[in-house]
Amino acid sequence: MIYQASVTAPVNIATLKYWGKRDKNLNLPTNSSISVTLSQDDLRTLTTASASPDFEQDQLWLNGKLESLDTPRTQACLADLRQLRKQLEEESEKAQKNDAKANADAAVEVVPPLSRYKLHIVSENNFPTAAGLASSAAGFAALISAIAKLYQLPTSSSELSKIARKGSGSACRSLFGGFVAWEMGQLATGEDSQAVEVAPLSHWPSLKAAILVVSDDKKDTPSTSGMQLTVQTSSLFQYRIDNVVPQRFQEMKQAILDKDFAKFGRLTMQDSNQFHAVCLDSYPPIFYLNDTSKRVIKLVEKLNSDEGEIVAAYTFDAGPNAVVYYDEKDEDKVLSALHRHFGHVDGWNGKKYEQEEQWSGVSRVILTSIGVGPQVTSESLINEKGLPKSSG
Amino acid sequence: MIYQASVTAPVNIATLKYWGKRDKNLNLPTNSSISVTLSQDDLRTLTTASASPDFEQDQLWLNGKLESLDTPRTQACLADLRQLRKQLEEESEKAQKNDAKANADAAVEVVPPLSRYKLHIVSENNFPTAAGLASSAAGFAALISAIAKLYQLPTSSSELSKIARKGSGSACRSLFGGFVAWEMGQLATGEDSQAVEVAPLSHWPSLKAAILVVSDDKKDTPSTSGMQLTVQTSSLFQYRIDNVVPQRFQEMKQAILDKDFAKFGRLTMQDSNQFHAVCLDSYPPIFYLNDTSKRVIKLVEKLNSDEGEIVAAYTFDAGPNAVVYYDEKDEDKVLSALHRHFGHVDGWNGKKYEQEEQWSGVSRVILTSIGVGPQVTSESLINEKGLPKSSG
Repeated sequence: MIYQASVTAPVNIATLKYWGKRDKNLNLPTNSSISVTLSQDDLRTLTTASASPDFEQDQLWLNGKLESLDTPRTQACLADLRQLRKQLEEESEKAQKNDAKANADAAVEVVPPLSRYKLHIVSENNFPTAAGLASSAAGFAALISAIAKLYQLPTSSSELSKIARKGSGSACRSLFGGFVAWEMGQLATGEDSQAVEVAPLSHWPSLKAAILVVSDDKKDTPSTSGMQLTVQTSSLFQYRIDNVVPQRFQEMKQAILDKDFAKFGRLTMQDSNQFHAVCLDSYPPIFYLNDTSKRVIKLVEKLNSDEGEIVAAYTFDAGPNAVVYYDEKDEDKVLSALHRHFGHVDGWNGKKYEQEEQWSGVSRVILTSIGVGPQVTSESLINEKGLPKSSG
Repeated sequence: MIYQASVTAPVNIATLKYWGKRDKNLNLPTNSSISVTLSQDDLRTLTTASASPDFEQDQLWLNGKLESLDTPRTQACLADLRQLRKQLEEESEKAQKNDAKANADAAVEVVPPLSRYKLHIVSENNFPTAAGLASSAAGFAALISAIAKLYQLPTSSSELSKIARKGSGSACRSLFGGFVAWEMGQLATGEDSQAVEVAPLSHWPSLKAAILVVSDDKKDTPSTSGMQLTVQTSSLFQYRIDNVVPQRFQEMKQAILDKDFAKFGRLTMQDSNQFHAVCLDSYPPIFYLNDTSKRVIKLVEKLNSDEGEIVAAYTFDAGPNAVVYYDEKDEDKVLSALHRHFGHVDGWNGKKYEQEEQWSGVSRVILTSIGVGPQVTSESLINEKGLPKSSG
């Protein structure tokens, strides 16, 4: 007997950045953050979680390769989910006993003891890992959601976000669609450090994103060690989290509620810049933006300046890739400005604009939009033996 | 009759950065700064100032080209110097009258009324302007020093630094050799915003500098407008000047007095990084470091890490050029690390080390050292007609 459930989960891109942990083990952040969930049509992780009394060990296949589940973070997530399942099973057992006492003939369905079964998990992204797009958020969100579905947990998305957070901080924001806030919380246990919805996709469905995948030969500083270095060495960082982020958090939420793109865009750009500023103020300094990233920034600044208003907003995570947000009504303005210099790369989906000088440094574009949170799907990645279909 | 005087003045490179004006007209800074004066053997401006009753207008020839003196900043400098000269002349006149009363026969020498004569000024750099090295500091320091010498002003270097400051803020620091502090001052008049010596060249003569001239096709944001943008838009900037710089100023002075290269170097690198961080936190963001600058930073960080101590310290002004400070005792370590990737460009003065992979992006190196302040010289740039020798 194999029990299984499959879920897809989205990528999210922060507009108010998460950078800095106050607790490394629990992934508790030094500040609250805000993100936009991107459409799963273009970027998503599909995960099938299965449990069976016949499985001999927990196993994970990621994009066709067997990967270790034996990291403290993944173990923390699995332990939390099994604990929640165990509670369900115990409650069911108790209910069954009570029922049995009351009516010896009634056949009450027993909840199978999945918490004691080993898990086989198969996970695939619909985008190349080589693109360097942060896939750990979608990955952990899909993992947690698939197991929660398999276990039939009645747990809310915010509750699940706290489990996903232990896997990868920003994964907690991928538990929701639309606009999402990760409230940093105050408790040492992390019980109040969770994602909440700021506004659903339906509030502002015309928000779009163009991702410029920037080629880079250098190895970026991993975000976990980068964050710690910034927390420990940047003299500007503490000021940012104490005095800049709290106000920006409120302003950005309001800009989203007001669908005020100019305000939302300006705050997004300023916060991306300030995140990279505190990286540069770290010692030794951390750089994620390269000369191509800077050209994209200048191109967007020029577009906004030419238009006399903010119609596009760039943001950069811990790498050189640019995400440019815009509203659908300004699509031709924004895409033609980007196409002018990057029209020669893949990903334009047949959109045609004038081309000028070709700039190197971008390997492809991904045109996408705001999207929904995790979705249950009937598409399964495992075969009847509980092994990945592709390798079956 | 032509009166003339010639002076050479040095370039200085800040180790604690000047970025931000609290008064644009008087060039009053938002924070104190510290610099090292570089040797005039490699980088200097030579200026001949001349005055004559026959000259019809104030004129300036800069590197062989007639340039306007008609900028508010230059006019402010000339007005101050003429005012000081006028006081001398009036005192001399008064003394002469007194003498004449006391002894009608005594011929007291009259101070000629140079303050009423027009000036011809000829100025030349011994380094290519194309190198993109800030030459305005040396230029204004030489201009002010040459006219002060011509006018035979008894004014101290700190007093003259206040006049140079009005021409170009950082020029005030080129009035001294060795290690120089520009004390920001508090007065609205700027009377207490002046350069002072931290330590002379003789205190630490073994300090050396390798300048890597970085090629760049883009036009940098001019520093004056860049500073104003940072002051107005960076939320981290005010914290820097209120809470970081005052302590760093004291620490860096102490590191210089202690000849503690590791401490001096670390503070220098951190302050360069923080200056570029507040530029990036400006809106729109200002970038001066390019990918080549970052490679130099990483190369220096790796060298220090391999050595287990700080033996080299990078600093970058408002452009991509790198200045790498080191102590003479570590010259082979530092130069061989730089030569490894940039050995193919000009400027190594016959120094030979191993070469590895050639990196592009640097057009030449300038190997120099700490140097003295302005020097009077008998070398004159004007001919007997009061015109530039080269064009005479």
